[in-house]
This record gives sequence, structure tokens and C-alpha cells, in this order.
Amino acid sequence: MSSVVSLGLDFGTESVRAILVDRTGQQRGVASCQYKHGQILQSLPGGSDPLPPRFALQCPGDWIESAAQATRQAMKAAHLSADSVVGIGVDFTSCTMLPTTIDGTPLCEVQQFRQTPLAWPKLWKHHGAIDQTERMNSIARQRNESFLGRYGGTIGLEWFFPKMLETIELAPDVAAAAEVWLEAGDWFVWRLVACEANDLTRSSCQAGYKAMWSASEGYPSQAYFQAVHSQLAEAVDNRLPGVMRAPGESAGGLCKSMADQFGLAVNTPVATAIIDAHSAVPGVGAAEPGTLVMVMGTSSCHMLNATEFADVPGVAGVVQGGILPELFGYETGQAAVGDAFAWLLRLLNLDSFDAVAESALQLPPGAEGVSCLDWMNGCRTPLMDGNVRGAFTGLGLEHGPEHLYLALMEASAFGLRWIVELLRQGGVPINRFVATGGLPHHNRAFVEVYADVLGETIEIHPSTQGPAVGAAVLGMLAAGSEVTGFANVKEAATAMANDAQQKSEFIAPRTERSDAYASLYQRYRSLADVVQTTQSDQ
Amino acid sequence: MSSVVSLGLDFGTESVRAILVDRTGQQRGVASCQYKHGQILQSLPGGSDPLPPRFALQCPGDWIESAAQATRQAMKAAHLSADSVVGIGVDFTSCTMLPTTIDGTPLCEVQQFRQTPLAWPKLWKHHGAIDQTERMNSIARQRNESFLGRYGGTIGLEWFFPKMLETIELAPDVAAAAEVWLEAGDWFVWRLVACEANDLTRSSCQAGYKAMWSASEGYPSQAYFQAVHSQLAEAVDNRLPGVMRAPGESAGGLCKSMADQFGLAVNTPVATAIIDAHSAVPGVGAAEPGTLVMVMGTSSCHMLNATEFADVPGVAGVVQGGILPELFGYETGQAAVGDAFAWLLRLLNLDSFDAVAESALQLPPGAEGVSCLDWMNGCRTPLMDGNVRGAFTGLGLEHGPEHLYLALMEASAFGLRWIVELLRQGGVPINRFVATGGLPHHNRAFVEVYADVLGETIEIHPSTQGPAVGAAVLGMLAAGSEVTGFANVKEAATAMANDAQQKSEFIAPRTERSDAYASLYQRYRSLADVVQTTQSDQ
Repeated sequence: MSSVVSLGLDFGTESVRAILVDRTGQQRGVASCQYKHGQILQSLPGGSDPLPPRFALQCPGDWIESAAQATRQAMKAAHLSADSVVGIGVDFTSCTMLPTTIDGTPLCEVQQFRQTPLAWPKLWKHHGAIDQTERMNSIARQRNESFLGRYGGTIGLEWFFPKMLETIELAPDVAAAAEVWLEAGDWFVWRLVACEANDLTRSSCQAGYKAMWSASEGYPSQAYFQAVHSQLAEAVDNRLPGVMRAPGESAGGLCKSMADQFGLAVNTPVATAIIDAHSAVPGVGAAEPGTLVMVMGTSSCHMLNATEFADVPGVAGVVQGGILPELFGYETGQAAVGDAFAWLLRLLNLDSFDAVAESALQLPPGAEGVSCLDWMNGCRTPLMDGNVRGAFTGLGLEHGPEHLYLALMEASAFGLRWIVELLRQGGVPINRFVATGGLPHHNRAFVEVYADVLGETIEIHPSTQGPAVGAAVLGMLAAGSEVTGFANVKEAATAMANDAQQKSEFIAPRTERSDAYASLYQRYRSLADVVQTTQSDQ
Repeated sequence: MSSVVSLGLDFGTESVRAILVDRTGQQRGVASCQYKHGQILQSLPGGSDPLPPRFALQCPGDWIESAAQATRQAMKAAHLSADSVVGIGVDFTSCTMLPTTIDGTPLCEVQQFRQTPLAWPKLWKHHGAIDQTERMNSIARQRNESFLGRYGGTIGLEWFFPKMLETIELAPDVAAAAEVWLEAGDWFVWRLVACEANDLTRSSCQAGYKAMWSASEGYPSQAYFQAVHSQLAEAVDNRLPGVMRAPGESAGGLCKSMADQFGLAVNTPVATAIIDAHSAVPGVGAAEPGTLVMVMGTSSCHMLNATEFADVPGVAGVVQGGILPELFGYETGQAAVGDAFAWLLRLLNLDSFDAVAESALQLPPGAEGVSCLDWMNGCRTPLMDGNVRGAFTGLGLEHGPEHLYLALMEASAFGLRWIVELLRQGGVPINRFVATGGLPHHNRAFVEVYADVLGETIEIHPSTQGPAVGAAVLGMLAAGSEVTGFANVKEAATAMANDAQQKSEFIAPRTERSDAYASLYQRYRSLADVVQTTQSDQ
């Protein structure tokens, strides 16, 4: 059965990766491909008008083209025939979402909306819906909506309904033409299986974490949406077609035109999508409760399964079966990690951090007095506030780039420690830490600082392809147990995520540095308190 | 009498300037010369051991060599004969101070101390005496010492006695060998006139602003110094020889060897030294009360004369006759201005701010959310705390170098506004603002931001040589009214500081920006409050 292979497609912020994994976990082929238009931050393709601040869009054509190209490259590298691929899994950034016509055509591809920013897919990090988010939160609190308890009491700026409402309010012509609103991951799966209205499958993972949906209660009530905006209520009723399925359940078979474009067999089962970060949990084989999977990338997402529900203030999403069947999935995150370092690199006018990192890692804990808050893209957990901003304090003439670099790393680690403390204080057990994700380099140094600050041993999963492998696990599931021999996701994850050729690396905390970080963490928390207070005063 | 010329020697942090000014204010020759060793921050000349953090030293040989070279160049450019120069004035950074033997030999030139950092002259910005300053302050407060009232209740980290005490405690062998402790400005004047023990003249300006001396009370009492450290009391009694004179009073005539080295006439009168910043007051002709003279440089010093004494909390020094005869001189300052920009330039890895400044000045007030505290070298007025450190807050992924640049400029302007408010609230009138000093470029843009933030018109004095011209004014005074025809310093200052070929530029506040800064100033003050609180918690 070694020729039984699953294709995982992992859609990131800048590029997509295609990975081919067999039943034993061997990675038979990997390829990635940048999106032609990358993140659309300055102006729309074919236009020159500057986008408003905080806008971050993407181009749907890029997803198809890049995924097809990466798949063909991976297949070529793997020397596999099309029919070896028994299933396709898809993970996607979220909430990245778009409006389409009833046949799945993105509105940004309709002539009249090509130069209308709010007709384009909004990337997860698009922060245009500040006002809308505030109102949705305040009305939810006034009405004491039950869904608030599942999300730490706060709806996020990056979520599905605030993004919908932004378009309804600011681009009513787009909202009127939007026959379907959906997550990009669901759109992509829809495209793969044919793109007819009755083929649309939505992911309970994306709906549960980003659209306030739960298996027992569904979406929030019409009464709530009416209190927010009558058109939002109307759109929830009429413009969210499709059936809800769990990640790994089949959404249908690959259609002819996509099979041709991707070089795969017609009718290959396609799995319901999963959020990229959540995909890392099966992707690193962490199928048991109590393991915190830290997916480090442009932003970081920390995932944890538990056997019980706990209402932890500041924890963004708890969804039953949202990551693995039956378990309660807890999602927490840090809004800028790789992004913050990329920003610092630009700010300091450097080509690489190599030299700076070498000096930085020789500094004592605390960066000789420099503190940082890494809220350059807002604070996800625990504040759920996209508006707060970052800081460097303790700056003196004696400090250089290496101090800022270490302080930023420490801020990131302190942010994680805050999350871990919140979860544990809320009664959610954590007894294993696994790091994965695609931080391009210095990843090990980064994890060393995390281990020191947490005072915990962290396992670096050998794959830098955690989410991609997770998608492949789900593709394998969609193929069915008769074809694959796996009875459930736990079996598949355990087998497929443990590539025999690579071993996990265990990073233990260094006692002396770890001790120093205990009081430095308090310095960080004080800084977070005062910056939060000062900024919300304004 | 146009051939009656005075030489001003202006000793800065990196270089010395020599200027030749005649009775009418015409600048007949100017030259400057870098110190061979510059600021000594890393290791001593001829050594490789790293200096402790916060150390900033200088080399006395540099002062003589650079001053002689600059003088010869200025004389050559002016085509003047040696006997045209009727007097020499000297302004110096302060408190820059050193220990010498009884014949004026700096201890750092004595073989056994050449590699002992604390035997070297401590530059004004040397911050090694943190503990000593704290103790001297706390004991002074316990004893309710009367001198505290003249200095806003706090002795500065950069002052004379904390620097003396640092050496007494940490390098007792140096302290034992130190037969004379003195300001670098006084040492240089002493050298010019012969350097015999009975020729030593001390400046009442330097003593008054940096060594807690007053005309009526002298130095603090032996009882106070005994309470601090018995050896400090002993040194004040026995190791501070010399007579106290006001700036502009003659300290003696130029000795033969220096006359030869400088290319000047033997016995040319040499004026008692003045602090560099204070020298700018006569140097820009601001000889009346109520004019704030802002000397912008590596650090900034803001000088003001008033007819009455007011005890303003946080204002570092009020000395009667400390700047001009009879008037009360108020000294306030900002610890890092040019230094902070030089640091930011290094940090951002730029060759120049030209491009960044152009973008920055097109930004709206408030740098799109980025705030700064420019305490990278501590806060002089009003906190008198060399330990507090600076910050940037409100940082987002959308911000670049131009935001940091504007925020730093605004921080500097807000710091000045704070000082102006304190003085006015304390009952000290200010009705004219004059900017001068040697910020290398962007000086005008800088003053524009200052004018907007203050909401006041600022006059840029055309000379970038304010302190140097002030020194020349004092040199002219030392020559005596028979030779020069000037009856007093006010007459000399008014005549000599108004070079007919240059005109002051008046920068008015721009209403719209000025209005915006009213609330942004409150944001700055909140930030200053929380940073101050957070840092003093540690």
C-alpha cells in the first residue's frame, strides 16, 4: 500500500505548498509556489489607487494557478502516476473570505467590481472592520449572547461576520451582488469538486473558529444579526448556502477541468477544508489531549485539545471537534511573529538577521534593559484587539539592533507564556509542547528562548510542513478506510506524521536564563498593562 | 578699531572650534578640529580592555592640540597678525572634569595611571556615578541642605562632586594622587596662563551650575560632605585650590609656550571659562531677561535670564550672575538631542536622514500613532534622572523609519514644551525664543516642529557658532574696556553677536499643526508618566 498517497495543499499568506505523503509518513514529493500577486496591500492588480490603511487582500486566480503548479511539480518529483493519489486535503489561512456569484465566480472577477477593493478576497490579516467588530461585540454583550463564552468574551477583528458587515456598510453594491459569502478554503474545495451551488461544503472548523458557529447552536440568532444590521441578518439567511462538514469528511470528487489542470485523476476524493494552523495538529501527530502545538509563521497559532470545556477569558475559540473528533479544540494566537521580524528587518535596513542574531543570543536575558511588546499587528490572545500597537522601551544610546532583535524574541515568548498561564489557570491541562511551522530561519534559537521563558522542554517537530502533512492526513481520511486502511484520524495522524527519516529535537530550558525570565516576565506584563491602558485611553 | 579681534575657543564633545570676531561682529576667521581620540567610550587609548558601560572619557592632550591647530587655521584664514588678538575666551562642555597633580599634569598622563579609566577626564555625559549621585541626593534631602532649592531639589548624575566621589570610592589610588580636581574648562585656562598652582582660576559659572557653589554660601558645608564620605570632605578642603572668578574676568596672560604653540602673542589676556551652552547667551546677543536661548547640539541646553529668583521644581540650576552679571540664570536641558538622532541613524543602518526626513515631514502631527520618549541618555529637565530610558510606542507593521524620525523630533519638542510650561508655571517670564547651536542639518525642520509644538515663534540666530561667539565676547571683555571700548558684557554681546551680513530667521507656528499638538502633547505626558512609573518600579 506504499503507493497509496495523499495530496496535502497548504495555503499560506504568500504561497501554497503541495505535499505527497504515503501511509508510512514518507514525504514522496514537495513543492511550493508563490502567489503571483502575493498579499495585495498597496493597490489592486491593474490599478494604481492606494488601498486604505489596514487593507490586506488576495487574488483567487493565484490560489488555483499556484496550487496547480505546485502539485504538478510535486508529482513530477515523486514519480507517481495520477491514480496513486487517493485523496486531496486542503488547509487554508482563515478567516480569508470572499463574496461570489451563485456559480462561485469571485465578484472581483466580475468586470464591474474589478477595481472595487471590498469585492476582493480579504486576507485573514485584513483589519478594515474595526468599527464593525466593535459594534458586533458591544451588541453581543448587551444581549448577553451565549456564543461569547466560547470565544473568551470577544469577537475578533479578523473574523467572518465583521468582514461581511464591512462590505455591507461600505460597498453596498458589492453586498447586493454577493450571492454567496464564504471562506477561501471552502471556495477552493468547491472549485475542485465542480462549483455548482449544491456542491458547496463548508468546514465546521472554519465556521466554528471564525463564524461563531457551533454544532449545537448553529450560527448566532437572527435576532442578534438584526440588532446589528438588517442586511447582515438577510445575508446570513440567504447568502450562506452549503452543508457543514468536519475536516476530513469528503466534499466530493475532483471535477474534470481541475483534474486536467492539476494532473490528477477525475473523481479523486476531496476533503472538507481545515484552517492552516489547526491542520498542524494532525500534521505533527499530536492527536492526544494536553499537547500544545505551536504553529509559528507570519503569525502564530497555538492549538490544544482537551477532554473538557473550560471558559477561559481571552481564549479566542473553543470548538468541540474543531480540530480532532470529539475533543474540545482550544485556539489561541499571536498576531505578528514572522511578520514582526520581517518588519524589524525592513526597519533596521538589514538584508538578514544573521549577524545581529549572533550578537543578540550572547546577550543576557532581558536585552540589557530593552523591553518589547510585539503588538505590531494587534494582540490576538488574550486581548483580541487588532488596534493595540507595539512598543520598545528601556532604549538607550548604548543599544543596537541586537537588543531590539532579542527583545522582540522575548516579547513573543512572554506572549506565549501569558497564554499558557491563562489556559492552565482556567483548568486546561498542558503537558507537552510541540513547535512547528515555517519560520524561515533562526527557528531553533527562537525555540530556545521560548523554552527558557516557559521553563518547559519544547519538542521541535522535524517537519517544517506540519499543516501540509495535516492536510494530507485529511485527504487520506476522505479517501475512506477501505482504500487507506486507517479507521480514524488519530490512526492516520500517528502513522503519517512520523517520517522515520527525521527525529524530533528536544529543547530543554537553560536553568540560569529560565530563572532570570521569571522576573523579566513580570516586567513584560507591567509594560503590557500600561501600554494597554494608555492606548485605550485615547 | 576693526583690527581689535577676540579669539573664542569653543570646546564641544567631538571637536573644538576657534573663531575670530571683531568689535563689529564680523567673523574674521573660523576653523574647527576634531579631537584625535574623540569620545573615549570603548577602551582607553593604548589599551584594549572594554570600559564599563556608561563611561565616557576624553583625552586632555587632544584639547590642546586641536585648539592650537584650529586657532592657527583661523588666524591664517583671517590674515591677521598675532597682536590683533586682544583677548581669548574659552567655553567648554561641563561638567567635564579631571584629577591632576599640583602642577596641572592630568593623572592620566602619569605613567602608573595611563590604563586606569577613572584617572582620565570624565566627559559631561559620563554616567558612572549613579550610586554616588543617589546617595548624595538622599543625604542632602535628609539634611535639608539649602543648596537643593537652587537645583530643583536634585543633584545631577553628571555633576562635579558625584564624579569626584565615584573615583574616591572606586579608584582610591587615583583619588590619593589627585592633588587638584577641576573642570576641564578651568584646566585649559590654567594651561594657557602657565599652570602654576597659584595661577588657577575657577569659573563661577561652572562651579555654580555643576558644583553646588554659590557666591553667598560657597560650596556645600563640610558637615554635608562628611556625612557623604570623609575623603570627599577632605578633598573639598584640600584639593580644590584656586580663586573663583566670573566668566569674562581675566584669568591671566598667555604664557610663552602656549603663545608659541597657538601662534598668538605672549601675555594676551585669557578670560575665565564659561560652560559652552551658557556661552551661547552672550553669543546670540540675548542679554535681556525673558529670552529663552535654546542651544541645540549633542544634548540641548536651554538658558534663560530673569530678574527674580523662583524655586521651580525640576529646574536644574539657578545661579545669580551665572550667565550675565546680576541676572538670575536658569539652566534647563535635554540629555540627548543630536546624540539621539545619531543613535537612530546607526540603529536604522542609514547613511543620512535626507530621504527619511523628506517623508517624515509630510506626515501629519503624531507620526500616525507612533510616540517617542527621547530619554535615550536619561532625562535632564525636569526629572534629573540619568537612569530613565527612552521608548517608542504605538508601533505597527505599517510604520517605517520616517515614523520613528518624526516621533523622535516631536518627543524632543514635547520635552521642551514641558520645560517652558514648568518655568512659566513657576512664575518665570518667557517672551522670546532664540534657537542656536550646531545640529548639523535638518535644523530648520527641527525648529519648525518646535515652533508648532510650543505654539510660539522661534528665532533662529544666524550664527551656528553661538557659544564660540560668546567665548569671543568674553575674551574681548578680558582685554579690558581701554583696549576694546566696551563698558560691559551687554554692550559687547549686542555689538559682537549681530553680524551685519546675516539675519535671524523667524519660524512661526503653523496653526493647524499647532492645534493638533495640543492633544498629542498630553499623549506624550501620559507616556512619560507611565514609563517613569514603570521604570522606577524596577
